[in-house]
Amino acid sequence: MSKCALHLPRGRHLLVDFHGVAPGLLGDCDVIEALLRDAARAAGATPVGGEFHHFGPGLGVTGVLLLKESHISIHTWPEHGFAAVDVFMCGAAQPGQAVAVIEAALQPASVTRQEARRG
Amino acid sequence: MSKCALHLPRGRHLLVDFHGVAPGLLGDCDVIEALLRDAARAAGATPVGGEFHHFGPGLGVTGVLLLKESHISIHTWPEHGFAAVDVFMCGAAQPGQAVAVIEAALQPASVTRQEARRG
Repeated sequence: MSKCALHLPRGRHLLVDFHGVAPGLLGDCDVIEALLRDAARAAGATPVGGEFHHFGPGLGVTGVLLLKESHISIHTWPEHGFAAVDVFMCGAAQPGQAVAVIEAALQPASVTRQEARRG
Repeated sequence: MSKCALHLPRGRHLLVDFHGVAPGLLGDCDVIEALLRDAARAAGATPVGGEFHHFGPGLGVTGVLLLKESHISIHTWPEHGFAAVDVFMCGAAQPGQAVAVIEAALQPASVTRQEARRG
């Protein structure tokens, strides 16, 4: 059962753009999936599925980790040193903790954050 | 190759909450996935993968369609007549067209829209 099914579907949705990331950190599906799983764990969220796609040599990864609490998605452009992440979590999970794990791994030169309330 | 790899990773990210939806429209994984594929088509976007999860009888669906242009996600709570959708598209795709298809199918009593620029 979804933890969120026990609550009203209220949540926080964080949209975070990471600029100035080393391209070598953005091009490997397995590394990116492991990073999102680490991020979910740090947030206290529980994965229920995932899908990741690589666009080809020198290009990026697009992927999502589905959670009981909603999702974490990432889209990377190694050729621009850029990654777009969104973390949507309801219930008691802490989406900011997920973002902190991703930021620590990607070590971006700059970060743009936006937040929306959902539900 | 990602269409977006040919461009700067700029895009629009629409966060849309649908309230007052008939619960019967929100509980079937196959129906929800077909709806998101229709929405992608309307937006001129190209799916590259998808993952959908059902939380059990009477509960909702969480799922995502990965696109060359980024993603469409949905999380539903039939027990609250509620669905949270986000549509993130870069390049020439039209995320508003995707939202329009989903809204036409779900016929919500009310809609809350938020939009962010990414990239």
